[in-house]
Amino acid sequence: MAELADLAALEMLATWDQMVMMPSEGAAARAHQLGALSRVAHERATGDDIGEWLAALEDLQLDEVGRDIARLARRDWERSRRVPAELAAERSRAHAAGQEAWRRARANDDFPGFAPALELNVQLARAYGECLADGAGGPYQALLADYDYGLTTEALRELFGELAAALPPLAEEARARSPRRDLLAVPTAAQRTVVASILRRVGVDERSWRVDVSAHPFTAWIGRLDTRLTTRYSDGNVESLLSSLHEYGHALYERQIDPALARTNLGRGTSMSMHESQSKLWENHVARSPAFAEVLAAGLAAAGFPVAPGELHATLTGVEPSLIRVSADPLTYPLHIILRFELELALIEGDLAVTELPVAWRDGMRCLLGLEVPSDKLGCLQDIHWGVGSFGYFPSYALGCLIAAQLWEAIEDQLGPRDEDLRRGEVRPIQVWLAENVHRHGRRLDTLPLLAQATGQGLGSEPFLRYVAPLARRQA
Amino acid sequence: MAELADLAALEMLATWDQMVMMPSEGAAARAHQLGALSRVAHERATGDDIGEWLAALEDLQLDEVGRDIARLARRDWERSRRVPAELAAERSRAHAAGQEAWRRARANDDFPGFAPALELNVQLARAYGECLADGAGGPYQALLADYDYGLTTEALRELFGELAAALPPLAEEARARSPRRDLLAVPTAAQRTVVASILRRVGVDERSWRVDVSAHPFTAWIGRLDTRLTTRYSDGNVESLLSSLHEYGHALYERQIDPALARTNLGRGTSMSMHESQSKLWENHVARSPAFAEVLAAGLAAAGFPVAPGELHATLTGVEPSLIRVSADPLTYPLHIILRFELELALIEGDLAVTELPVAWRDGMRCLLGLEVPSDKLGCLQDIHWGVGSFGYFPSYALGCLIAAQLWEAIEDQLGPRDEDLRRGEVRPIQVWLAENVHRHGRRLDTLPLLAQATGQGLGSEPFLRYVAPLARRQA
Repeated sequence: MAELADLAALEMLATWDQMVMMPSEGAAARAHQLGALSRVAHERATGDDIGEWLAALEDLQLDEVGRDIARLARRDWERSRRVPAELAAERSRAHAAGQEAWRRARANDDFPGFAPALELNVQLARAYGECLADGAGGPYQALLADYDYGLTTEALRELFGELAAALPPLAEEARARSPRRDLLAVPTAAQRTVVASILRRVGVDERSWRVDVSAHPFTAWIGRLDTRLTTRYSDGNVESLLSSLHEYGHALYERQIDPALARTNLGRGTSMSMHESQSKLWENHVARSPAFAEVLAAGLAAAGFPVAPGELHATLTGVEPSLIRVSADPLTYPLHIILRFELELALIEGDLAVTELPVAWRDGMRCLLGLEVPSDKLGCLQDIHWGVGSFGYFPSYALGCLIAAQLWEAIEDQLGPRDEDLRRGEVRPIQVWLAENVHRHGRRLDTLPLLAQATGQGLGSEPFLRYVAPLARRQA
Repeated sequence: MAELADLAALEMLATWDQMVMMPSEGAAARAHQLGALSRVAHERATGDDIGEWLAALEDLQLDEVGRDIARLARRDWERSRRVPAELAAERSRAHAAGQEAWRRARANDDFPGFAPALELNVQLARAYGECLADGAGGPYQALLADYDYGLTTEALRELFGELAAALPPLAEEARARSPRRDLLAVPTAAQRTVVASILRRVGVDERSWRVDVSAHPFTAWIGRLDTRLTTRYSDGNVESLLSSLHEYGHALYERQIDPALARTNLGRGTSMSMHESQSKLWENHVARSPAFAEVLAAGLAAAGFPVAPGELHATLTGVEPSLIRVSADPLTYPLHIILRFELELALIEGDLAVTELPVAWRDGMRCLLGLEVPSDKLGCLQDIHWGVGSFGYFPSYALGCLIAAQLWEAIEDQLGPRDEDLRRGEVRPIQVWLAENVHRHGRRLDTLPLLAQATGQGLGSEPFLRYVAPLARRQA
């Protein structure tokens, strides 16, 4: 387990390096290197010896952590053994080819050019899901389990149905009041200064962190005390203020896992949705709060860009339906996910042909967001996920928003309203609460039991709806 | 073989990252990651399956490259199989502990604190050498073969004996003429500008290179088109002008290996001494030439630090015996190596007890360099090599100087004197000659056959002595 954790860390390092440091012509060699690493790791993770160790452990008296290590090791090993090596290899080739096909198709707005690769990815994902499916859930639920073990397709249908009913009227309400404000034209230099000072304030120091720039912000946890986040800056865009705290949320999760779990199979975040909840908590509930806007505004003023906190807050929370998921506002964001969930579920279950995807996408956008999609480039070709064979991944983005809102309500229930602290930039009690109630457990608890233990609630949409309702009404 | 090459590249990446990018507190996790990688690679490199493949290959008709791949694969595999796994593991633990012990001992000038760790490293190196030794050479020659396959202890004794006789009188001659000039106090900013422009001129571009700063300059080749060199700068020191071209020499060697050998066991430099010859060729014969001093001086002038080429050249080539190997001048440098060779040979052969090392070091420095050693810190504790169990490595540094001088004479014989080209910063013919005669072969030829093919000569000291004699006499 320690070896697998070490190899996973090296994979993350090689990926981080590729995104942040590698000279561009190193790409071909890097693909080989990552391929070798993942082949070696896969071979180890599926080896017969793991089965022998697990059998031997059954005769031993283990402590609680030991039992969890064995339980997750068995689960991971048994799942991995259900996938024939030929299918795994075929998927990995198809994903590499699909990524290239997607990149070209998006550049040329050429969905038909992408369709064959997508068709193959759908078939292989279905076959993969069928290997892993147990009983009722079907192949889609099995795919979901790779990202979020224990969630059911049925539960997602229900939750997303609630959001699909509740969010469009709120978006309409916001639109009726006024158009979204123009973004504040904050110069890059001032953004950099504020991002650096905010990150310092929440504990990012150079002894165990790196902060770099990359084309797409992401976070790499290479060791317990080697965390690397990236952000990006562009003039007249305040995305960096949100995305740096978003990435910080991912980073803090991994850093606050019980050190005793390091280099075991339990020593990482438990699921994609729980991870996304951590980034969304810092993005939506800290960075987008009116109280924290005062800290951000003070930072911008000190960097030579005076701005009223209210105006900054309005910029950070303005609601306006848009075609592109990654630039969506916090209220309409889940609608983008619901569209993708419905379409990928239909693709995997055979209810939607790949060739019909562009039309289905346009229908969905019209129905959920009230928008006409002018091109596939701005429609079903915008995301990389399906091109690289990731089906069942999208839901975690919306679940992250829901869980973040649930955790935030639990925090304010237990610690009292956070406004006064946030106005001063004080986040220590939030960090401590998250460490105690979420982070320290690593993979010992799956998404739903972890959420239940932290909040006393099941997964639900009400807290998120309570969070976004004022965003629709506040706009003036 | 491809997988082993990929894993080796990842090891280099993780090491580069540790030296250049990693936050300091990531060190503990990185040690685990590198350990996992080297364990996995060792397991693969020594696996039974390699023997089976080699046996199967015997029935096939291979082309020339295929035969070399099989020949080297057998040699590497058979050597690796002669070392018991327990000894390999024990060595690796002792090297890690030895490095720590050395670091502490050097900081406190405490040789007795280092002696037990060194004693263990010597015993384990001897045991390791005995596993690998075939016949006459004994354990030291077997250790040497890890770095320079095919060299004999006897040949080194002879070559180093010639240098030990010839160099001290030349150093004395230099000293008698005048003390070494003070170093030019070139500001760091001007050094940076010149290093950048020189590296650009020799082909370092950002598409497939990185140039960074690290505590100790080194080069990492992570892919054929992903080369990373580092340098360091300090005010009033012109080391960066030499070390950047030194590292470039290592880099160019790896980059000019026949692309067809990439990701095979032949696709890297053939030995430590041949590698060092490449760095020394660029350091001693290009950067330290009077002709190239004109290019460097013009660069410094353009960076706001006007200096006469002659004065710069004198600074770069001044001869003065010193206590520290890494800051030695080009003439006395091999004497530092000869001292280490004699001492490590005696340690491994049991002719010198570890406790007697400090005295033997002092005696050697007096005899070879005419210097009194005031402390072990400035004596036998100055280098990391023995602390990490590297015995047989030091000779390659001196052999690199000799081979560089031989190659340089061959280049000038075949292409004519280089002065006119170098005065204009034109190095293309040198690059092409090295590619054709040295680099492209990768590991297909070992050190001695490669040298013979490139120069028509065996390994010898005369070209180097012809190179350094004018340095002793030029000084005024």
